Amino acid sequence: MRRALELAARGLGTTSPNPVVGCVVLDAHGEQAGEGWHRRAGGPHAEIHALREAGDRARGGTALVTLEPCNHTGRTGPCAQALLDAGISRVVYAVADPDPQAEGGAATLRGAGVETVQGLLAAEAEQVNAAWLTSVRRGRPHVTWKYAATLDGRTAAADGTSRWITSAESRADVHRLRAEADAVLVGAGTARADDPHLAARLPAPAPDAPAPVQPLRIVLDSDATAVRPGARVLDEAAPTLVAVAEDADAGHLEGHPRAELLRLPRTDGGLDLTALLAALHARSVRSVLLEGGARLAGAFVAAGAVDRVVGYLAPALLGAGPQVLSGGGISTIADALRLDITDARRIGPDLRITAAPATPLTKEH
Amino acid sequence: MRRALELAARGLGTTSPNPVVGCVVLDAHGEQAGEGWHRRAGGPHAEIHALREAGDRARGGTALVTLEPCNHTGRTGPCAQALLDAGISRVVYAVADPDPQAEGGAATLRGAGVETVQGLLAAEAEQVNAAWLTSVRRGRPHVTWKYAATLDGRTAAADGTSRWITSAESRADVHRLRAEADAVLVGAGTARADDPHLAARLPAPAPDAPAPVQPLRIVLDSDATAVRPGARVLDEAAPTLVAVAEDADAGHLEGHPRAELLRLPRTDGGLDLTALLAALHARSVRSVLLEGGARLAGAFVAAGAVDRVVGYLAPALLGAGPQVLSGGGISTIADALRLDITDARRIGPDLRITAAPATPLTKEH
Repeated sequence: MRRALELAARGLGTTSPNPVVGCVVLDAHGEQAGEGWHRRAGGPHAEIHALREAGDRARGGTALVTLEPCNHTGRTGPCAQALLDAGISRVVYAVADPDPQAEGGAATLRGAGVETVQGLLAAEAEQVNAAWLTSVRRGRPHVTWKYAATLDGRTAAADGTSRWITSAESRADVHRLRAEADAVLVGAGTARADDPHLAARLPAPAPDAPAPVQPLRIVLDSDATAVRPGARVLDEAAPTLVAVAEDADAGHLEGHPRAELLRLPRTDGGLDLTALLAALHARSVRSVLLEGGARLAGAFVAAGAVDRVVGYLAPALLGAGPQVLSGGGISTIADALRLDITDARRIGPDLRITAAPATPLTKEH
Repeated sequence: MRRALELAARGLGTTSPNPVVGCVVLDAHGEQAGEGWHRRAGGPHAEIHALREAGDRARGGTALVTLEPCNHTGRTGPCAQALLDAGISRVVYAVADPDPQAEGGAATLRGAGVETVQGLLAAEAEQVNAAWLTSVRRGRPHVTWKYAATLDGRTAAADGTSRWITSAESRADVHRLRAEADAVLVGAGTARADDPHLAARLPAPAPDAPAPVQPLRIVLDSDATAVRPGARVLDEAAPTLVAVAEDADAGHLEGHPRAELLRLPRTDGGLDLTALLAALHARSVRSVLLEGGARLAGAFVAAGAVDRVVGYLAPALLGAGPQVLSGGGISTIADALRLDITDARRIGPDLRITAAPATPLTKEH
């Protein structure tokens, strides 16, 4: 299953809006006979790749899959049937498929006499598929808030200078986060101050894999004043969506060849983030990387729409300057947004901390 | 030498104002014959303990010592002579002794035909003796700034509540830091807001070692308004020093049986920290743990008097509330106080980051 998880992770950045899936097929003697991963939406599923490689050796064998095999005929046939046709006698999968369209793969297999086992390395499999699982379960994209700050939580000095707080290694790592995301999002303040480009430096494609896709660039520009013609975000490197208020004067963006305009209702001090996320979900955006904008991040915290936090901490002190997070609607310690650290590691001279909202106790029982 | 360093570390909290030192004696065949560490000021040095244990086996053997053996007769005899008397033929030490009173131990040994080697595990030995080495080299105590904050750098929520941001495990770890320090220091704001006790929960003494000593509690109370009779810091648990301005009306503290009063010149917005550190050095305080007070920490940063930073990061977000560090006189990114992370580890659910000012390049060349 570890190998299947490694294979699944190769699909990050190319399979959306589908999940990433890895599969290893063992023959009747327990020897590896085939392996595969889902490479891109519309292409064969992981099980099909692995069964093809295994050929006749799959008969009487075991399939280890990171996600419950699907049971529906979409652009490709149902994997449950393919496993039966290949004569697989045992299917071990890490995470059940919560997609109502796909459910029942394990039931179909069991009905045909195949032994099924669920739960092996489930936590790791949840993590690699966090974006897709969040989308299916919550009907909105998975949101990662990324920040870069000094040890004392400053994103720039008092005079506004911030180049560079974190190291080249950390900045390269951010490009990896971008490449794995379906969309990258900033607020008007960041767009105005930094004129960011927001495209990812894409990694070389994995062997036999399609080239990674540039994420959609999104600017939340309530009053339609931050993204002006000539902004770097309007170049040809990647598609761009500018979200503005329903009543904003956005004449300069209407019909712009490089900017898609999305109109959203206003809420206190910004745009309706629930409506934004619903619109993104409707267009199959499964994961959003939230970059820049302490107030924007605060609005996502207040909306309960932060699923992962990735902080790059530079070993430096400033003592003054803008804060990493502001707003969020938390006024007392009992209401703090509590997280669990899932990973902490050195990235060059910096420290990268990955955390996710602490699982409510009710979910454990 | 690793073993000698472990032994040296046992002395943290009991040897001040002396250095911590560990020593391992090998016989002529390279077998360990004795070991020892310096337990308390006025007691035998590490070498003496190790030589006693080795007895005749020291003859022709090697002594591994974390610090250059001393050459002067203080409350105990010079170790260099003791090593010669025991017939040691080789002395390997990690760090040279910068104390002008003690220098020359290695020269004396070499003059008597003993082979000496310097530098083995020097970085580790520097670290274990950071307090004492800083004191000798800079003529002031080694200062550790400790903070506890959320991932977004807040030390309390907007309404001032802060119990508890970090975990019980982190708070226990802070008591270890206190027990290793000669003094614990807070500002008037913290004293007024929290009425802290500042005593350490002392660990059980190491085998054959004296009981750890309570650190001196210090409150910087410029106007003599924060520490009032009845303050917890004025109980019998540990000695207490209250530093006030020369012109402060401190009648309520003069002659107080539990508070020693120290008068210091005023500087912009506070007390003269250089004068404070000089006064502490004069009374043999080798290490200070700076706790609490974002402005106080900023003043130490501005004075260039932070030698180590220990941050306890709780995986939580607040989005509002007081910052961990304020002031420090840094207004642009190029002037950021750059540090090196020397350690990062999980303490319960929290993350503890240890960092020290980046070594200036000039020191490397």
